[in-house]
Amino acid sequence: MQRGKFITFEGCDGCGKSTQLRLLSDYLEKSGVPHIFTREPGGGKISESIREILLNGKNSEMTDECEALLYAAARAQHLRDRVEPALSEGKLVICDRYVDSSLAYQAYARGLGVEFVSKINAFALEKYLPDVTVFIDLSPEDAFRRKNGADENDRLEQAGTAFHQKVYGGYKELAEKYPERIKRVDGKKTPQGIFEEVLKILKENGCI
Amino acid sequence: MQRGKFITFEGCDGCGKSTQLRLLSDYLEKSGVPHIFTREPGGGKISESIREILLNGKNSEMTDECEALLYAAARAQHLRDRVEPALSEGKLVICDRYVDSSLAYQAYARGLGVEFVSKINAFALEKYLPDVTVFIDLSPEDAFRRKNGADENDRLEQAGTAFHQKVYGGYKELAEKYPERIKRVDGKKTPQGIFEEVLKILKENGCI
Repeated sequence: MQRGKFITFEGCDGCGKSTQLRLLSDYLEKSGVPHIFTREPGGGKISESIREILLNGKNSEMTDECEALLYAAARAQHLRDRVEPALSEGKLVICDRYVDSSLAYQAYARGLGVEFVSKINAFALEKYLPDVTVFIDLSPEDAFRRKNGADENDRLEQAGTAFHQKVYGGYKELAEKYPERIKRVDGKKTPQGIFEEVLKILKENGCI
Repeated sequence: MQRGKFITFEGCDGCGKSTQLRLLSDYLEKSGVPHIFTREPGGGKISESIREILLNGKNSEMTDECEALLYAAARAQHLRDRVEPALSEGKLVICDRYVDSSLAYQAYARGLGVEFVSKINAFALEKYLPDVTVFIDLSPEDAFRRKNGADENDRLEQAGTAFHQKVYGGYKELAEKYPERIKRVDGKKTPQGIFEEVLKILKENGCI
C-alpha cells in the first residue's frame, strides 16, 4: 500500500487554523479521502498528559529548555501512536502544529536557537518531515484582534506581544528557508478565500 | 559567598542508594553542614508532574525518545528550581540520580546512543556537571536479590534483567570514562562499610 501524505498547519495563535481545519474536514469527508486529523502537543494518552503540563496556566515558572523538551517528548510519542500507523495505512495525516511550531516558538521566540531545538527534534526532522506545511500568514496583531484578545487560561497566549512578534518572525524565516515544503497562505483573506488556496496547494502536491 | 558543591549518587535500582542517602543525611545534620537533598526526576511542581508520567506503570507504551526527552525536561526544570538556588546560597546539593542515569538507562540500555542523549542534556553536561558522582557498584542480580524482586508498579523496574544488565554496563563504562568525577564504591560491602567510603570520597573532594 502506498504510504499516506503528511500535512501540517502552522501559524501564530489566532491565525485561523481551526477554521481551515474544519473546512478541510468537511471537504475530505465529502470526497471520501481516508484521513485523520490530529494535533500537537497531544494525540494519545501519554502525549495528552504532557500537553496538560505544557498548557497549564499555573506552570508559568517553566524554563524554556523544559518547555522545548516537553514538546519534543510529546511529538516523539505522537508520531509513534498516531502519525506512523495512519501513514502506513495509506491515510492522509493532517496535523495541527508540528516541528515548525517548536522552531518558531522555542528556537526563535524563546531564544533557545535553531541548533538546540533541531537536535532535540532530530527524530522528527530526519524521519517525519511533512510532505506539505501550510503556513497561514497573519501577524499577531491581526490574529489577536480577530480573537478579541489572548486566552487568560493559556500559558502561551499570555506571553505578550513581543513574544508573538518573534514567533511570527520565526515562521517567516522558516518559510523563506524551506520554500519547497512550507507554503504560505495570506491569512488576511476571507476563510473561504484561504481555503481555496489550501485546496490548491494540497492538489498541486498530490495530497488530494 | 562560595558556591556550594554538587554531588550525585548513581547506581542500578536496588543498589543501596537510599540507605546511603539516609546515613549521609544523619551525618550532615549532626555536623551542621548546610545542604539539601533532592532527587531526579522530580524536585518541584512541574518536575514532579513529569515524574508521574515517567514512573506510571500504565505508560508501558512510552517510546524511548519520549522517555529520554521527559527526563531531560524534568532535569532542566529541577536545576533551575532546586539545584541552582541552593548552590548559589553555598549549600551542598546531594541529588539522587542525575544525568549519568540518563546516559546509563537511555543511551546505553535503551540504545538511543550517547550522542543523542548528550545533546538533549547539553545544558546539564555543560553548565551543571557534578563535582563528585558516587557510583554504588552492585550488579542487577545482587541488587534485586536484596530488594526481593522488582516493584510491580514501577515501569522501569519491570523492564527485565537484560535491560538492567545494560544499565549496569553503561555505568561501568561511564566510570571508566570519567574517573576524575565518578567515584566507584563497592556495593557488596555492608551499608556502614559503603558509607565510610562515601565519607572518604566527599572529604577528599572538599565537599564536607
